[in-house]
Amino acid sequence: MIDKSIVEQAVRAAVAQVRSDHGQIKIGVSQRHIHLSREDLDVLFGKGYELTKKKTLMGREYAAEEVVTLVGPSLKAIEKVRVLGPVREKTQVEISRTDTFILKVSPPVRPSGKVEGSERMVIVGPKGSVYLKEGVIIANRHIHLTPEYAENKGIKDGDLVDVLVEGVKPTKFFDVQVRVRDDFNVEMHIDTDDANSAGLKNGDLVQIINKK
Amino acid sequence: MIDKSIVEQAVRAAVAQVRSDHGQIKIGVSQRHIHLSREDLDVLFGKGYELTKKKTLMGREYAAEEVVTLVGPSLKAIEKVRVLGPVREKTQVEISRTDTFILKVSPPVRPSGKVEGSERMVIVGPKGSVYLKEGVIIANRHIHLTPEYAENKGIKDGDLVDVLVEGVKPTKFFDVQVRVRDDFNVEMHIDTDDANSAGLKNGDLVQIINKK
Repeated sequence: MIDKSIVEQAVRAAVAQVRSDHGQIKIGVSQRHIHLSREDLDVLFGKGYELTKKKTLMGREYAAEEVVTLVGPSLKAIEKVRVLGPVREKTQVEISRTDTFILKVSPPVRPSGKVEGSERMVIVGPKGSVYLKEGVIIANRHIHLTPEYAENKGIKDGDLVDVLVEGVKPTKFFDVQVRVRDDFNVEMHIDTDDANSAGLKNGDLVQIINKK
Repeated sequence: MIDKSIVEQAVRAAVAQVRSDHGQIKIGVSQRHIHLSREDLDVLFGKGYELTKKKTLMGREYAAEEVVTLVGPSLKAIEKVRVLGPVREKTQVEISRTDTFILKVSPPVRPSGKVEGSERMVIVGPKGSVYLKEGVIIANRHIHLTPEYAENKGIKDGDLVDVLVEGVKPTKFFDVQVRVRDDFNVEMHIDTDDANSAGLKNGDLVQIINKK
């Protein structure tokens, strides 16, 4: 008797291989979220507070149980903004352009980590509030690749590729940043505006078009 | 002495001509809105009620002063949804995919007027409420052209074209429906999800790519 789970695993691996051979990768839709510095975590949740992991995302990154409220210059609030762990060197808020019209802010489109000169925001937690002077961005469209996948496709860290989306609202995203690291999954990350524009949801497949 | 306004008008016309020669057209971003039938206008605003024009949009179409509240199966509401006039044969609600997650509905992506089998919604006005059995859609990306513009570009009513968006989030929209009518302006209409995904606002220019 063949173990059913072994068959299922083999089928899944074969299907994933075929998709990969055709340059198809999975979509991960990023909701608005925040990465906190140790210092800001102390202010918002209390000195020495440790985040509680809710769900592993990729490598060491996880969604925490904790949420905060954002308040913009409009004095309007967006509640229940998920905190992502672990703590980072700098606090970074990632929102969609749709959110910017509620909060009345003009953050730049940036790769994660590039917060110099970006937007301001008030962040409110259960133990205090932070007036963040820079750190609010609209995250750029980007693709995470493993070194094996990237090498196999002739793509390098930092390359820009195009991405084709099929379906009811067919779309091409140009100049999508590729990031390659050992602990990444093979996944394209887009925000909710990109997902809703192109009719994409978590796990949908898109096609990488290597420009070289 | 040359009249300054004549010079300005000549320059604007020349620039518009060059842009048109290069296939560039203006973007109009459609916020969520509703078209009402005579019958539903009676129920929501009172028997024989007439809409008040706030702003002309295109041809006979106008944004009215009146707004309604939408309530979805989530029992959550979206307030201040603009009514567009004049009244139509059938009531039609046009929302974005972003809105569907608040209201918990799954409307199809459709051209305006194709409401058969589309989504349900409760509409609330100052004098009553309507349980709309069908009529909620996500409007498709579409382009309005004048007969002159279309003929000049070799495009016909009903054609599908691709549209190139440059800027900080470069994007291509495929298979965009073209509609040609005497009383149209030359404009591409997209919803707020498409606008926010591609970083577009009212009056931005995009490039039509004729596929034939």
